[in-house]
Formats: sequence, structure tokens, C-alpha cells
Amino acid sequence: MLAKRSYMVFLKDFYGPLLTQKQQEAMNLYYENDWSLAEVAEHMQITRQAVHDILKRAENALQEYESRLGLAGRFLKTRQRLQEAYDLLEHPSGEDNTSKVLLILREIGDML
Amino acid sequence: MLAKRSYMVFLKDFYGPLLTQKQQEAMNLYYENDWSLAEVAEHMQITRQAVHDILKRAENALQEYESRLGLAGRFLKTRQRLQEAYDLLEHPSGEDNTSKVLLILREIGDML
Repeated sequence: MLAKRSYMVFLKDFYGPLLTQKQQEAMNLYYENDWSLAEVAEHMQITRQAVHDILKRAENALQEYESRLGLAGRFLKTRQRLQEAYDLLEHPSGEDNTSKVLLILREIGDML
Repeated sequence: MLAKRSYMVFLKDFYGPLLTQKQQEAMNLYYENDWSLAEVAEHMQITRQAVHDILKRAENALQEYESRLGLAGRFLKTRQRLQEAYDLLEHPSGEDNTSKVLLILREIGDML
């Protein structure tokens, strides 16, 4: 559940503004504020089933955007490679350390 | 015109898959293949005015996506900072060169 929650928050960081206001509100309360379905329902003055449906549609929309655009994945890979470069530079290992970092930076450039 | 063309190709690289098939086709031919409106019109078997309208709607849609999501801008800034880090590493200047690069990499990480 935590993995899904993190992933949804991650996708929402990218594509959230393309969701409807209601979808954004429900996702904020449920995923970011960690409220229960019942709490979200009471706050939004709708049924739990309606909250469930709104979240489901929002999740599907976010996944659809990512499957079409893949930008969140590109950012994530960039972040991982960047961390590698950072670690290598902070804790040099071997003579060709700088070359390795330059190579990674070039690879990141190609991903952007 | 070149600047606009480059910018549209750049935005299309990010949000193109969210455009309709027709919009994508017209943009490919006009912006990427550098065809004239008349050539695109003949190929798509529609009027020049129709091509113009399709392109206009596509451009507006791309700009609207960027204004909501800002992901192309984030990528662009990342790319620029990355180039700075690369240049510093390739042509070191001063003793605290590594510190400077690490700082830039941290800043890039914060943008992602």
C-alpha cells in the first residue's frame, strides 16, 4: 500500500494539474494527508463509494498520462543517475573517477 | 519564426502524445519536416485554412499543458545546470572545483 501511495503522490507531482479539482482534492486528502475514505467522504460531503470512484478515476488518469508521456519515469531515472554521479564525486574511487562522472552526466543529458 | 518553431518542437517532444492524431501529423509535417502549409494541406487532403486551424489548436494545447505542468521548463533548466557541471568538471578552475560541481548536482536534484 505504501508503494502505491508513494507512486501516486509521485505521479500527482507531475500530472496533478491535469486532474479535475475534485480529483485533486480527494487525492490530497487521501494520499498526501493520509485520511481514511470515511474522513474524505465526510469532508467532501459525498459517499465513501463516490470518494472511491473519484480516486480510482484519478489514479487511472495519472497512470494514463504517464503511460503516454513517460516524463515521471524520465525524471526518476535522471535522479538516480545524478545520485550515482554525486556519490562518485563525493567519494572518489580510482584514477578515472572524473571520466566516469562525465560519462554519467553525458548520459543524463541524453535522457533529458 | 525559428525560435517559435524550435519551441514548438521542444514542447511537442514532451506533450505530443496528448495531441490528437491529426494535430500530431500536422505538427510533424509542418514543424519537424519543414513543409509549407500548402504541402501539408495537399498531403492531408484538407484546406490550408484547416491546416492552419489544426496547428493553432495544437500550439495552444501544448502551451496550455506547459503552463499547467511546467515539465518542459524543468527539464530545460536541468539541462542547462547539467551543462555547467559538465564544463566545470571537464575544465577545472580553482581548488574548490569539486565542491562547485557537487553544489550544482544538489541543485539539479532539488529541481527534479
